[in-house]
Amino acid sequence: MAKESVEARLIGLYDNVVDAAKKKKDPSIDIPVRALSNVEFNQKRRIIEMKDATTERSFFNLGMAKKFMQTMLVADALAELQRQDLTTSLREIYYRTKHTLKGSSENTFDDQNESDPIIEDLEVTLEALREELHVAAEGRGSIVGNVTLVDGGDPIDCTKAGKAGHTVPSIVEDPGFSVKKCSADFILLIEKSTQFNQLSEDKFWKKHNCVLITGNGQPPRGVRRLCRRIHDEFKKPVYVLVDNDPWGYYIYSVVKQGSINLAFESERMAIPDAKFLGLSSFDPEKHGLARTYSIKLNDKDISRAKELMAYPWFQKKEWQKEIKNMLSSGVKYELDALASKNFQYLTTSYLPKKLKDKDWLD
Amino acid sequence: MAKESVEARLIGLYDNVVDAAKKKKDPSIDIPVRALSNVEFNQKRRIIEMKDATTERSFFNLGMAKKFMQTMLVADALAELQRQDLTTSLREIYYRTKHTLKGSSENTFDDQNESDPIIEDLEVTLEALREELHVAAEGRGSIVGNVTLVDGGDPIDCTKAGKAGHTVPSIVEDPGFSVKKCSADFILLIEKSTQFNQLSEDKFWKKHNCVLITGNGQPPRGVRRLCRRIHDEFKKPVYVLVDNDPWGYYIYSVVKQGSINLAFESERMAIPDAKFLGLSSFDPEKHGLARTYSIKLNDKDISRAKELMAYPWFQKKEWQKEIKNMLSSGVKYELDALASKNFQYLTTSYLPKKLKDKDWLD
Repeated sequence: MAKESVEARLIGLYDNVVDAAKKKKDPSIDIPVRALSNVEFNQKRRIIEMKDATTERSFFNLGMAKKFMQTMLVADALAELQRQDLTTSLREIYYRTKHTLKGSSENTFDDQNESDPIIEDLEVTLEALREELHVAAEGRGSIVGNVTLVDGGDPIDCTKAGKAGHTVPSIVEDPGFSVKKCSADFILLIEKSTQFNQLSEDKFWKKHNCVLITGNGQPPRGVRRLCRRIHDEFKKPVYVLVDNDPWGYYIYSVVKQGSINLAFESERMAIPDAKFLGLSSFDPEKHGLARTYSIKLNDKDISRAKELMAYPWFQKKEWQKEIKNMLSSGVKYELDALASKNFQYLTTSYLPKKLKDKDWLD
Repeated sequence: MAKESVEARLIGLYDNVVDAAKKKKDPSIDIPVRALSNVEFNQKRRIIEMKDATTERSFFNLGMAKKFMQTMLVADALAELQRQDLTTSLREIYYRTKHTLKGSSENTFDDQNESDPIIEDLEVTLEALREELHVAAEGRGSIVGNVTLVDGGDPIDCTKAGKAGHTVPSIVEDPGFSVKKCSADFILLIEKSTQFNQLSEDKFWKKHNCVLITGNGQPPRGVRRLCRRIHDEFKKPVYVLVDNDPWGYYIYSVVKQGSINLAFESERMAIPDAKFLGLSSFDPEKHGLARTYSIKLNDKDISRAKELMAYPWFQKKEWQKEIKNMLSSGVKYELDALASKNFQYLTTSYLPKKLKDKDWLD
């Protein structure tokens, strides 16, 4: 969607208020409901989608008047960003829209917890990604390998980005950013920087003709969007490499079909064809990783794993087997544990074998 | 120090054991004490230094035998890294050195909390930085501006590193890394990525001929070492930009004179000439930032601020005034609060005025 369009949609909110006033009616906005009740897994598209329940937020209603006013203030700040072509953070939106009402000690906002959900309300109401609203999420992540990006107008050849790599921008939607070229065979999305650093140091991307990307934990939006763009625009498969624990499974599932909280963004963020490369709960046996190097599952792990098994998108037989096997073993494994074999086991043995055997889960 | 030298020092630990055995003596290692009692502020060098107390760790001592054995195991893994020219993480060292002793259920290590301090012991004992031992700390941070690096053999021109910038390597000590050229007038070390992103988007580094670098919070070792290297090798001043709270003051003080915990590294990490650019507790008044945009100091802030005031390196009159002013105001301010004025206030007003007026603290 073009930038004018987002600004126009923001201004549209104000036009509605003016129209209502002219008609002597109560100004109101219909906001899609962001809750589990309004979410479903689309089996055909294989993504988590939002259904179409909405709730009305109106001005002449004691319980909603403040929130209505806050919504208009945030929309105003967002329109300012569009007009000036600037980017900001959730925190700065809070400060920009906060003020003390004249002749009172009442603040428009007392806490960022009040402004953050309103930005999400506007995202769904206006059908604009947060990035299109010019609000950056945390920027965290690096990329190396056979891909050339354009960032802020500068061409970035990621085969020449050193060991540490190029920083993944928090926003990969603006006109100054593009994926120019990608001659890699696949994208390897790595949960943790330790493994990214090791693979980059060993130039794994060169030997196996791929792109390495990490988000240092749960991948932030910029990393997910960049993987999705390379996947879409250059038809490259995406493999996800995470620890063998419920959080690793969850990271994979968010990359693949989106999250419940941000279901309205799945369409632009999810990669339904992404594959789970490992660590699988069957890998320790396959790779002779002794139980000494495991970590006992705690109560939270166990209940989280059971939750995952109940999700519609984990119903495939292989996935039920995978998670059950972790639960019955009673332990989890970190990728770092592969170092117990030798410091290059990941690069020279584990990954090459996985890729050769196509030993992944869908 | 050359790499051979670190490996030789590691092997030296083993030679000592062999020598002791030949002489039928108890093998032991003298390890410098890492505690507040063994630390002092060197007023002349303006860094926090370690004094020379040591403690003996010996093998024939029930209370020390396990730790002695652990020390030798870690030294062995570190020597392996040197021989193979590989880099790893603290976590992987733990896995690499962990095993179950034959014929028992006893593990060499049960938790990373046992192996981490031993790596620090070896750092001080062998006088080798963690980076020289090839153990990477968390890599987190980005750099843009008028500097050219060489990373993993690739030249990285940071004027062409896009908006997001080059990732700051977690290790900037290895032979494949260097600072090739720096034509900037100064380095701006920015606490948070929000301000880094804003300044990078606005190409602040171009207009003000500088280098922008962030560590996304407390700067990790790689960011500190890189600042120090540019500072040393190209004689560039370093300005630190943090929130106005005790944690911001502390971040500055660690950059400037090192930390108590890692006093033995100050010599290679600290930048005694670094300046505190802001936010100062006097800035809200100077810049007309209303009290609405402040955050009330909590009990932890207050006790932390009082602790800082007592440190020898915060005894300068201006610093006592700075911290007292925060305490008497009862509030703290985030850099993000400058957005309440306008989204570009930091770039176009706050920083240019600060730099023009030389309005910083030493």
